[in-house]
Amino acid sequence: MVKKQFLCIALLFPILLLSQSRLRDHGVEIGVLKPGTLNAITDVPGTQVGHFTLVKGDSIRTGVTAILPHNGNLFQEKVPAAIYIGNGFGKLAGYTQVKELGNIETPIVLTNTLSVPTGVNALIGYTLNHPKNENVRSVNAVVGETNDGYLNDIRGRHIKEEHVLSAISAASTGPVQEGNVGAGTGTVCFGFKGGIGTSSRVIPEKAGGYTVGVLVQSNFGGVLKISGVDVGKKLGHYSDSFKYSPDGSCMIVVMTDAPLDSRNLERLAKRAMLGLSRTGGIASNGSGDYVITVSTAEECRIPYTSDNPIQTMPTLRNSAVTPLFLAVIEATEEAILNSLFAAKTTTGRNGHTINALPKEEVLQMLKEAGKISD
Amino acid sequence: MVKKQFLCIALLFPILLLSQSRLRDHGVEIGVLKPGTLNAITDVPGTQVGHFTLVKGDSIRTGVTAILPHNGNLFQEKVPAAIYIGNGFGKLAGYTQVKELGNIETPIVLTNTLSVPTGVNALIGYTLNHPKNENVRSVNAVVGETNDGYLNDIRGRHIKEEHVLSAISAASTGPVQEGNVGAGTGTVCFGFKGGIGTSSRVIPEKAGGYTVGVLVQSNFGGVLKISGVDVGKKLGHYSDSFKYSPDGSCMIVVMTDAPLDSRNLERLAKRAMLGLSRTGGIASNGSGDYVITVSTAEECRIPYTSDNPIQTMPTLRNSAVTPLFLAVIEATEEAILNSLFAAKTTTGRNGHTINALPKEEVLQMLKEAGKISD
Amino acid sequence: MVKKQFLCIALLFPILLLSQSRLRDHGVEIGVLKPGTLNAITDVPGTQVGHFTLVKGDSIRTGVTAILPHNGNLFQEKVPAAIYIGNGFGKLAGYTQVKELGNIETPIVLTNTLSVPTGVNALIGYTLNHPKNENVRSVNAVVGETNDGYLNDIRGRHIKEEHVLSAISAASTGPVQEGNVGAGTGTVCFGFKGGIGTSSRVIPEKAGGYTVGVLVQSNFGGVLKISGVDVGKKLGHYSDSFKYSPDGSCMIVVMTDAPLDSRNLERLAKRAMLGLSRTGGIASNGSGDYVITVSTAEECRIPYTSDNPIQTMPTLRNSAVTPLFLAVIEATEEAILNSLFAAKTTTGRNGHTINALPKEEVLQMLKEAGKISD
Amino acid sequence: MVKKQFLCIALLFPILLLSQSRLRDHGVEIGVLKPGTLNAITDVPGTQVGHFTLVKGDSIRTGVTAILPHNGNLFQEKVPAAIYIGNGFGKLAGYTQVKELGNIETPIVLTNTLSVPTGVNALIGYTLNHPKNENVRSVNAVVGETNDGYLNDIRGRHIKEEHVLSAISAASTGPVQEGNVGAGTGTVCFGFKGGIGTSSRVIPEKAGGYTVGVLVQSNFGGVLKISGVDVGKKLGHYSDSFKYSPDGSCMIVVMTDAPLDSRNLERLAKRAMLGLSRTGGIASNGSGDYVITVSTAEECRIPYTSDNPIQTMPTLRNSAVTPLFLAVIEATEEAILNSLFAAKTTTGRNGHTINALPKEEVLQMLKEAGKISD
Repeated sequence: MVKKQFLCIALLFPILLLSQSRLRDHGVEIGVLKPGTLNAITDVPGTQVGHFTLVKGDSIRTGVTAILPHNGNLFQEKVPAAIYIGNGFGKLAGYTQVKELGNIETPIVLTNTLSVPTGVNALIGYTLNHPKNENVRSVNAVVGETNDGYLNDIRGRHIKEEHVLSAISAASTGPVQEGNVGAGTGTVCFGFKGGIGTSSRVIPEKAGGYTVGVLVQSNFGGVLKISGVDVGKKLGHYSDSFKYSPDGSCMIVVMTDAPLDSRNLERLAKRAMLGLSRTGGIASNGSGDYVITVSTAEECRIPYTSDNPIQTMPTLRNSAVTPLFLAVIEATEEAILNSLFAAKTTTGRNGHTINALPKEEVLQMLKEAGKISD
Repeated sequence: MVKKQFLCIALLFPILLLSQSRLRDHGVEIGVLKPGTLNAITDVPGTQVGHFTLVKGDSIRTGVTAILPHNGNLFQEKVPAAIYIGNGFGKLAGYTQVKELGNIETPIVLTNTLSVPTGVNALIGYTLNHPKNENVRSVNAVVGETNDGYLNDIRGRHIKEEHVLSAISAASTGPVQEGNVGAGTGTVCFGFKGGIGTSSRVIPEKAGGYTVGVLVQSNFGGVLKISGVDVGKKLGHYSDSFKYSPDGSCMIVVMTDAPLDSRNLERLAKRAMLGLSRTGGIASNGSGDYVITVSTAEECRIPYTSDNPIQTMPTLRNSAVTPLFLAVIEATEEAILNSLFAAKTTTGRNGHTINALPKEEVLQMLKEAGKISD
Repeated sequence: MVKKQFLCIALLFPILLLSQSRLRDHGVEIGVLKPGTLNAITDVPGTQVGHFTLVKGDSIRTGVTAILPHNGNLFQEKVPAAIYIGNGFGKLAGYTQVKELGNIETPIVLTNTLSVPTGVNALIGYTLNHPKNENVRSVNAVVGETNDGYLNDIRGRHIKEEHVLSAISAASTGPVQEGNVGAGTGTVCFGFKGGIGTSSRVIPEKAGGYTVGVLVQSNFGGVLKISGVDVGKKLGHYSDSFKYSPDGSCMIVVMTDAPLDSRNLERLAKRAMLGLSRTGGIASNGSGDYVITVSTAEECRIPYTSDNPIQTMPTLRNSAVTPLFLAVIEATEEAILNSLFAAKTTTGRNGHTINALPKEEVLQMLKEAGKISD
Repeated sequence: MVKKQFLCIALLFPILLLSQSRLRDHGVEIGVLKPGTLNAITDVPGTQVGHFTLVKGDSIRTGVTAILPHNGNLFQEKVPAAIYIGNGFGKLAGYTQVKELGNIETPIVLTNTLSVPTGVNALIGYTLNHPKNENVRSVNAVVGETNDGYLNDIRGRHIKEEHVLSAISAASTGPVQEGNVGAGTGTVCFGFKGGIGTSSRVIPEKAGGYTVGVLVQSNFGGVLKISGVDVGKKLGHYSDSFKYSPDGSCMIVVMTDAPLDSRNLERLAKRAMLGLSRTGGIASNGSGDYVITVSTAEECRIPYTSDNPIQTMPTLRNSAVTPLFLAVIEATEEAILNSLFAAKTTTGRNGHTINALPKEEVLQMLKEAGKISD
């Protein structure tokens, strides 16, 4: 049987996760807002994350990550959403319908570039097979990707629909595994091993007290900055030819319990790229950088069918969204840095090795820059 | 063997096609510009079209249509392109990268809504397997769709990758089969049987003498007009509830040998919706209306790799594009009408029957309106 | 005194307007929906229109038209709005803020191309000078334009701020003057005299019973169709060089009492171009075609300031907007045709003369095509 | 005479400018690329900048800055251009035509929010009055703005057309005055005095050796970072209510001698917002953040009229633009910081005072963070 040959790292040990050393555990604070309890996208009520990791033999280093805005029937209870294209050299599925209709009707799936159609097929099946969706004949699957082809045999297209469904099944609230996991298994970020990272922010009560959570699949380049310290420059660890590889990318998923319509969700999405920039990202020509933003506010859900042609929905006024912008920026920056801090040195296709961020050296730099409070 | 069970209507009898009665054969002229020799998208030099039709049992009425801008390695010799979203309630694949980079690198494939990922997978395989593409690890497949779920068991997802590859293999220059064929096998247009339609226009020599070709997969609603005659209104053949079904759509593919960059190709694409409007289309909420435009001009091809970071490309000035706009509008209108004239009454899923346009009655109306010259 | 020299045709004689012969008065019905009482944009409750016409000497043929969504303080009570760019060769002011924030905060002003800044200045003054706006220091004026430079000495920039304010002051509910009036004084459409035109549609009660009103400033080209009859082609009245003049344009203002957010208002706006197409318009390279759409629904107004950061607003679901799309298309087509039927032969700058549409000849054509019911 | 009452700080003493202490003079290097000779937008060959500063009485603190891509007739020799909307709460004029046609045909003017129409009127006059433009009847003026209404009596609309023309006349190559000058006279940035700032980068020879120059009018908020040091956070100098004032904004003008079409220029423009982010900017709801990008490459100029409908233009391939992205980001970050370093404490309207950045304190912070090399 094929499946036995897979090494599936399931999300079995959340307690172990807590012992993972994250950036903030070292005393580094990104920004001025406070994170939520878990400092993870799952701080946003109802949000669930699941991974499927596929590591096999010498050259398969890939996976799937699924993010669910709520645990109901997403097709019947759609969520307001937007997608912002930071740089469109990518294959994300689902963009045009989200743009037109302002909502998302499936889980959000992240995987590798050439497995996007497999992700879409899996989400179509997932939706059609729900017992209450027996009359559904149109599904707008949202699947993002980055290209893990340096470490992973991406041409082999090893992700199967069952893997995607496994990631969805594994989705849960609680801590989120970071680093070489799920869709981040084979990614590379600033020349170091990247992967999945997450972070969150809670805005002050007087501004609404909402939570913003971010999850990233980091696979892009530039000149790395950590909390403003020029790590990439100091290490000389960036392309001196300025002919950057075109196969980077960053997928950013943003959830918030703030009640927002798709117009303001798109504005939030746009700010995530500002957070990416603060890590030294430059959205290079070959980078497919997309931000997917969802409001999980229950009062904003959009029923597939309704007797009433009018929906009365509470949403934040334009003048109230700025604190959420700041939250998105800070959480995106920290989520990317968390992905680097969690990722481990990996060897894959053709013997390619990508090293983990040299954490000790980096922490020393941060200390010297006064970024670590004793 | 599975394949034997399929009824594949291949493009075997081009001579027969010529005997098909098209709108213009009845003396009806749409617009003021002249069509090309075939009055088809294949009038644009190098353009090839192939169909795969899947009609099986009581409920499978679907297929694939492939359009190729040239017969070389499209990944290595990309073509300038744009996609315009008339109404984004659709699942077209490939939009964001075409928007960002301004080119297309695969054949264009049309099929049914739930088979888009199969189309993408097939195009990825098609591209990776080309002997000169052995190092390719990223492919932006362009696959459009309309929803044939009324006549076809769309939930069964009967289109397989081999069917997509068959359509590509079948692609040829010359006359294009219209009506219930390929991706148009199960579509419905203005409540009548729709399908594939095509038309072309040649602009005057003093305006450049370029050819514009259009191919449509017609599957949308509104109040049908034929050459300005209110056919739908006269027949009372439109929704009196004004609660239109959301599963219509129209895919429009435009080719031209005019040298154009992606910005002006997007402007051309936008005009195709004006042509759709003239048939009575309204781009209803549930309609996924997309226009894909390509320049086939050889001097505009974009090599995947080049020693020279600069490409020197001749393109039409803004002030020279208006005649092409008119050509796109006229050819789109006529292509949609041709799809209706060619399509035949079809019974499919659940015994649903969609009648062909009542051509005799319609021609009588056109005659009375003075639209047919004796 | 300068003002005495102006010939100001104020909106003094609404009763006379009713005797104007409009397209529908001749028994020609555009589309399948019914118009409102006045068949004018002012059928939408609260909507007001005012003109200022400037005809002076041999070469001044221009003016201003103002459209107000309600008669309150628009800055303090903004309205949901969207602007769609049919073709952006134009100088419309206010686009980016409407796109970002989804609302309009001034009257909508139409004038000639080079007088847009004068219109903006006037609207800034109008807003700042309102007694309740004494702390306002930012105003997003919405001013559209078409180029009347063939008949009018546009380089002379004869429109003054006081003229703009006169148009606003003249705004009223009730019948709307069409043809050579206000911003339509010097415009040219399909080579005939164009101008201001208006029309409306009421959607069926079961679809919500909402009203859609359209007002156009017609100044564009193509090959004229009237109710589907190829008038331009039959008359041979279109450019045979296919080198169209770049100075056309069409401004389209759409009002509706349907409760809509800016996303769906933008979708409505997009459909107006489909209506323009049905008159033979092609959105040529040099045409600045813009559609401004506003919801006048009282429950959708957006207060400038509020103690509550959340606004709870009823809006139509996506699935309920299609009948409004049809209404926009039909009303836009008829508004453009009304502008042509109302406009009168005009001589202006350099002795240029533009003839009115030859109505008798056209009506004969319509009769022969069966478009006029006896 | 009115003019005598104005205090016009003309660009008389370029030598003095060199003695201004800029960020880099203190040993702080932003990024990894080298600046051009002047570290200014004028390092891009042909680019000229002119200021008109209007400081009068207690409450007038405003001005105009003009940027010219070349010293010829811009209407007759247009330049490829793009505008990116970082956040559209602003009144920039000219957006839609630049988007549609891909070029700019006037000088770029920056001023205060309510003076945009005056800027447009001035540019129309400037263009019409050129002896070779006597037949021009349509001008797309590009005018950006930020809101200086805290320090300046913006409601008084004190900028006149002659002031705009003065700024254009004053335009020259060479060093650019920064800080409280021209359009930056009354602006506020991160709660400190902002203004005009500029910077440039030269990309390596092997990447083409092109120069990118940036000029900003800084007037926005967030939590200030200088070279990654959390200055705003350390000083506690940011809004603790997270209810940011809506009247900020940032105008960013980017010039490059790299040959680029409008599509890639828009991609460059998008990256400028990444540079803004690195200074702590968040593109708050009320910020009108726009980036205007122009290619000054002579071989890319677009003649207004031409006998040849085809233009053959060399442009950089997509794969060659990444180094320019990095250059835009670095130069934008440094230009904003330069605006803060150059600006001086200012008292204006209603006795409002905005302090200059406390440079000594800031430099001490930078030193402690290891950002200043001895």
